[in-house]
Amino acid sequence: MKIGLITIGAELLNGTRTDTNAAWIGQKVIIAGGNIVWHMTVNDEKAPIEAALNEVPGDVDVVLCTGGLGPTHDDITATVLYKYFGAKEEFDQAYWELLTKKFVSRGRVIPKSNRNQAIRPDIGEVIPNTVGSARGLHFSNESYDCFATPGVPAEMKSMMTDTILPWIKSKSDAEIFVKVMRTTGIMESVLYEKIEHELKSYPDVNVAFLPRFTGVDLRITASEKKSLEQLIKQISPAIQKYHFGGEGVELEDAVGALLTAQNKTIATAESCTGGLIGDRLTNVSGSSSYFKGGIVAYSNAVKEEAVGVSKATLESVGAVSEETALEMARGVREKLNADIGISTTGIAGPTGGTEEKPVGLVFVGLSFEGGEKAYRFTFTPFRKTNKLMTSQAALNITRLYLLNGL
Amino acid sequence: MKIGLITIGAELLNGTRTDTNAAWIGQKVIIAGGNIVWHMTVNDEKAPIEAALNEVPGDVDVVLCTGGLGPTHDDITATVLYKYFGAKEEFDQAYWELLTKKFVSRGRVIPKSNRNQAIRPDIGEVIPNTVGSARGLHFSNESYDCFATPGVPAEMKSMMTDTILPWIKSKSDAEIFVKVMRTTGIMESVLYEKIEHELKSYPDVNVAFLPRFTGVDLRITASEKKSLEQLIKQISPAIQKYHFGGEGVELEDAVGALLTAQNKTIATAESCTGGLIGDRLTNVSGSSSYFKGGIVAYSNAVKEEAVGVSKATLESVGAVSEETALEMARGVREKLNADIGISTTGIAGPTGGTEEKPVGLVFVGLSFEGGEKAYRFTFTPFRKTNKLMTSQAALNITRLYLLNGL
Repeated sequence: MKIGLITIGAELLNGTRTDTNAAWIGQKVIIAGGNIVWHMTVNDEKAPIEAALNEVPGDVDVVLCTGGLGPTHDDITATVLYKYFGAKEEFDQAYWELLTKKFVSRGRVIPKSNRNQAIRPDIGEVIPNTVGSARGLHFSNESYDCFATPGVPAEMKSMMTDTILPWIKSKSDAEIFVKVMRTTGIMESVLYEKIEHELKSYPDVNVAFLPRFTGVDLRITASEKKSLEQLIKQISPAIQKYHFGGEGVELEDAVGALLTAQNKTIATAESCTGGLIGDRLTNVSGSSSYFKGGIVAYSNAVKEEAVGVSKATLESVGAVSEETALEMARGVREKLNADIGISTTGIAGPTGGTEEKPVGLVFVGLSFEGGEKAYRFTFTPFRKTNKLMTSQAALNITRLYLLNGL
Repeated sequence: MKIGLITIGAELLNGTRTDTNAAWIGQKVIIAGGNIVWHMTVNDEKAPIEAALNEVPGDVDVVLCTGGLGPTHDDITATVLYKYFGAKEEFDQAYWELLTKKFVSRGRVIPKSNRNQAIRPDIGEVIPNTVGSARGLHFSNESYDCFATPGVPAEMKSMMTDTILPWIKSKSDAEIFVKVMRTTGIMESVLYEKIEHELKSYPDVNVAFLPRFTGVDLRITASEKKSLEQLIKQISPAIQKYHFGGEGVELEDAVGALLTAQNKTIATAESCTGGLIGDRLTNVSGSSSYFKGGIVAYSNAVKEEAVGVSKATLESVGAVSEETALEMARGVREKLNADIGISTTGIAGPTGGTEEKPVGLVFVGLSFEGGEKAYRFTFTPFRKTNKLMTSQAALNITRLYLLNGL
């Protein structure tokens, strides 16, 4: 099913807001069997919205509009759509009673000015809003069905998920199956080589490689569920080591799940990451059951006094070294009484590099009862990228240790 | 000057990439005296690009195209534009010699296949690319001037900055001045009330309020530099307390600059933020001169043993309390031998709240030689938002202490 998208709002054109709705909608309609083939962004004014509705290509079946649709019926998108589709305003008594009840249940009297929230068109449909108070609109003419939602992402997503995507799915002839496999610790080209043969044996399955600094996501789509499942089954052994989760899963979620399942605790000693690993671990609800805490050992004094790195090590091989990483991981594990200690030390940059220890050089230390290991990386010239890649490497080292031991 | 934008690429329509170029371009053209009034996103195919070029509204003076323009001349955007503007391919001997020299200087022989990078149109202009190898294109007809750049953000930005924006500025009758003032610690509506009177006395200055979870940015634009400067001078006293920097400045930059200027050091004791404050402080290059480090005291045991919070405090008033926040700030300042100690403790959520201590309740502690203070906040039901807002509050408390004392 071919879908057109009209995103409405001056803030999108003048750049005060990035249009993240469009990308979200683009992804979601695919699963429902649709494809965005045409997308216009216009100001929230009468003439450009009308012009956009007139310019929708002839082969488009559905037009989605977001933005310019507020809690009152006189927002510009509603006004234009009522006129464009020849609808008249009606008072929706049932909805008015619902609104009134809501106010009463909060111990308030509903103001008369709220009556316009109960206005609805005499033709078409209103789309319920479980998040806010503005209802969406659904009109149709001989060319296409048109759905309008507010631009507020939470309200748009709720209307799409509850009403519009199911409608598209029910009308589209093609059902599309999508699965995301998130990987880390492997470059896009190497990942491709590992599964190239399998990909070529399933020409009806589309696999998009989405590289980030922290790994590569595979977005796999197919119209046959069986093909999708078989391809995943075939590529899984080769990428098992790198694959940590599906859509919406972060590496810290995967590490947290393993720690919980194995009833183990972790502590961090962070130098170059400055607290980022702790921040990521504590993004997970429930992390207090396995994350004891950490020491951000940014200065050498803190490395020595709070974590217990020896002066001799710092003086002989320096703070950015395998030895310091190991002593940090061991030190924090013992001091905070955790099962696993993980540490980072490196030159985050952009300054501070030397010929021997350039910007981007990082050591990650892992310590546990009965074993330890240090890992050396050379990342980028960029400070925040280095911090992010180091935190990812440390979390992945923890994940692999929990899965397979050292 | 009215500007149209055509962003080209299947990845924009199917949502595998968010169109961040459009927002960047939307902001930048304003400074050059232009406005994006029309924006289409199309697949990188012949028919939709041609259709978009045909549908440009009649009052548009300049059309910017991004995407579908790779290092070879046969990328689809170039092909369509050559045909649309009636251009013929020519071999650019001077550019070929430049390319050849580049290869020779790297000790390589240039492959014959690179000859097509030296193809240029017989009419119009090529736009130099200081970042990549694909050159941009500039054509014109009786309706508009058309500029095409690659979609790779770094290449697009370089061509816009070096060539296209200066061109727009030279042709536009209006010069526009822009200044961003970033604020924190004040709600949008309260900020508006504080400067409402001044805003109304300068109707020729436009002030956009851009709220985020961490504060409100003011984006101030005017065609008269003097009006802009006078308005800023008039509103500055009222917002001084909240205003921490201009465009691109983060709160941690402002705190870092104050610590450096006053030759003071800081240490953090983080519970509910889990390391986020340390992460933010260390995003600033040079932070090792003032950030000693921190303790992520996530569990009560770490609060007690590593930071020195008393068992009595934890047992009587609990971890999420004014007293614990103060003991954490004092403890980390003393243990890590810093001038300032800053601490966080709270219920990040979404679980763990009680009637007395609901999700979103946070205490921030500040300690320095000769004084200390605890601050109480009630944030949101959302974990990551609470962490972010808490880190912002803690950094802002530090900033205000450094500016004005307690």
